[in-house]
Amino acid sequence: MRVDGVPMRTVWWAGRGRVRMINQPLLPHRFEVVDMPDYHATAEAIRSMVVRGAGAIGATGALGMAQAAVEAPEKDFHAFIAQAASELRGTRPTAQNLFYGINTVLAAIEREGAAINQAREAAIAAANAVCDDDAACCERIGEFGAPLLADRRRVNTHCNAGWLAFVDWGSALSPVYRAHRDGVKLFVYVDETRPRQQGSQLTAWELGQEGVDHAIIADNATGHYLKAGAIDVVIVGSDRIAANGDVANKIGTYSSALAARANGVPFYVAAPTTTIATHTPTGDDIPIEERSDEELLYAWGWSDDGHFIRVRTSPSNSRGKNPAFDVTPAALITGIITEKGIVPATPEGIASVAR
Amino acid sequence: MRVDGVPMRTVWWAGRGRVRMINQPLLPHRFEVVDMPDYHATAEAIRSMVVRGAGAIGATGALGMAQAAVEAPEKDFHAFIAQAASELRGTRPTAQNLFYGINTVLAAIEREGAAINQAREAAIAAANAVCDDDAACCERIGEFGAPLLADRRRVNTHCNAGWLAFVDWGSALSPVYRAHRDGVKLFVYVDETRPRQQGSQLTAWELGQEGVDHAIIADNATGHYLKAGAIDVVIVGSDRIAANGDVANKIGTYSSALAARANGVPFYVAAPTTTIATHTPTGDDIPIEERSDEELLYAWGWSDDGHFIRVRTSPSNSRGKNPAFDVTPAALITGIITEKGIVPATPEGIASVAR
Repeated sequence: MRVDGVPMRTVWWAGRGRVRMINQPLLPHRFEVVDMPDYHATAEAIRSMVVRGAGAIGATGALGMAQAAVEAPEKDFHAFIAQAASELRGTRPTAQNLFYGINTVLAAIEREGAAINQAREAAIAAANAVCDDDAACCERIGEFGAPLLADRRRVNTHCNAGWLAFVDWGSALSPVYRAHRDGVKLFVYVDETRPRQQGSQLTAWELGQEGVDHAIIADNATGHYLKAGAIDVVIVGSDRIAANGDVANKIGTYSSALAARANGVPFYVAAPTTTIATHTPTGDDIPIEERSDEELLYAWGWSDDGHFIRVRTSPSNSRGKNPAFDVTPAALITGIITEKGIVPATPEGIASVAR
Repeated sequence: MRVDGVPMRTVWWAGRGRVRMINQPLLPHRFEVVDMPDYHATAEAIRSMVVRGAGAIGATGALGMAQAAVEAPEKDFHAFIAQAASELRGTRPTAQNLFYGINTVLAAIEREGAAINQAREAAIAAANAVCDDDAACCERIGEFGAPLLADRRRVNTHCNAGWLAFVDWGSALSPVYRAHRDGVKLFVYVDETRPRQQGSQLTAWELGQEGVDHAIIADNATGHYLKAGAIDVVIVGSDRIAANGDVANKIGTYSSALAARANGVPFYVAAPTTTIATHTPTGDDIPIEERSDEELLYAWGWSDDGHFIRVRTSPSNSRGKNPAFDVTPAALITGIITEKGIVPATPEGIASVAR
């Protein structure tokens, strides 16, 4: 995708042991690329959410492992690598894709045995392959999804399942970008996605950079616009897809799915097949992360005089409850758009594309 | 209700032509009572939302008219009164209760004919009666609604339909306050209610002052907690009830009603019968106010160094859409709690209590 007209990825190998990434917490107010000189810095970037989103985290974990391979001394090469893998895994302990990215590079290193220079090269090649795979899968999702938008041009999405959450293209937004580049005039209703505002801060910024017409709406307004006939299709991403087709995604997704169903509007989930957890039978088996209520009791943004600050939007003695995800039952999902095609949210549909 | 343990109303006649009210935009961060020395100041307080909420606006309009009667010169008494009524009506041109409050005092003045001193006294008495009626209606709503909470103690509400929106007690929160004072241990899930945050800023503050246990949640989380079985009953207020039982209320109410229905949780609307618009056949006939997108593109609150400011939570070139209300179809409503009893959301139920 593009930033100020320049092609860009979310995170990439910059050569000489360095990893570069977009500093996402500064978006949409400032665009900045940051340099991670070693794997410790990369780990800290994952932990502090400089980079976020399933695919992007997986790619960053892989790139961090490649850095570790470059940095590891010949003497204690494999012990250093093991320690790096452990440190990187600990940054976001529930992120499936992170383990996938780390393990892919680890396997490439181990295949080279004692040949350390070959192991370093293999690690870099494997990390780059993780990045390219992620981008290619997402691009395919766009190709499968774009035809759905040919006569359903008013789209609603929740949270950020755009290219910033992956290496390129994104999941839910990939069909939007594909159709837009093919000349289809779309309009996207962007849920702001409280409490962390990934919709208003990231999705709106991405769409603006690509020139896709859009409006930010309160999460409260999605049902109203669905009922009013203003939205033709809903597309969201996913954090985990269970074997029966239930989908965990950002809190609020379930309410959108209910409102779409009540008003006869198709509700699609777009995700690479790496998101499918075949060992998770149903949505009931997906643990829901409860995050700090600070996210809810404050709002973060840029003050009129140019500082990124928080403001308290609640009484000083009130507390909050802040679940990060909810589960949308398979029965509410029209279809799941993957890099292998669109499948129904059924055990058979899921099994047909699971890796 | 109480503030720091002291009994308090939202707005009241303070004698000698003065009206006092709670300065609501400063809540929950600072509690301040402001003095309106004349009807112009009272009109400006309505316009600038120092006071808001259907019942509270109606009472304030009535009190402003009483001020006008005190201020009006004997020579041009009735012309002055007519001008004041016009100025007060123009402050919130879609607020039904405002017209009711103004017209009630106007009628009391007109009944006295040319007897100016009696007209002044009648105006003050009528304005106080509007306030007392509002408080009494709301208290009755609490008495009818509280028994519903005897074995449904985990309550969800949206926006602020508490005493700050009326003169005292409130509508949706009145059953909560009644049950709480009767010793029922309740827990309230408070939707923060973007974009204006009336839930996190007003409802949470009210509940805290009355000692009612509660947690603020993102509007996105309501569906999740309903599905999880954590909420036993939803109670919301209303801005307008159509003759067929459809209900207009703060944007997001419709999504809560859908999620309640999908999970078998009762969904009640609480409102005084002044909210019923018998001349509005259905929800489709209720115009939906579209407000400035500034409310959505920014968040307002208190900075860590104690200033009330806004922060931008969206790209500088993105726009928003900001409907203030939505319509919940009668079929999703379990019952309507009024000061005359609980009635079904049907044409017959509505007709049985309409004024």
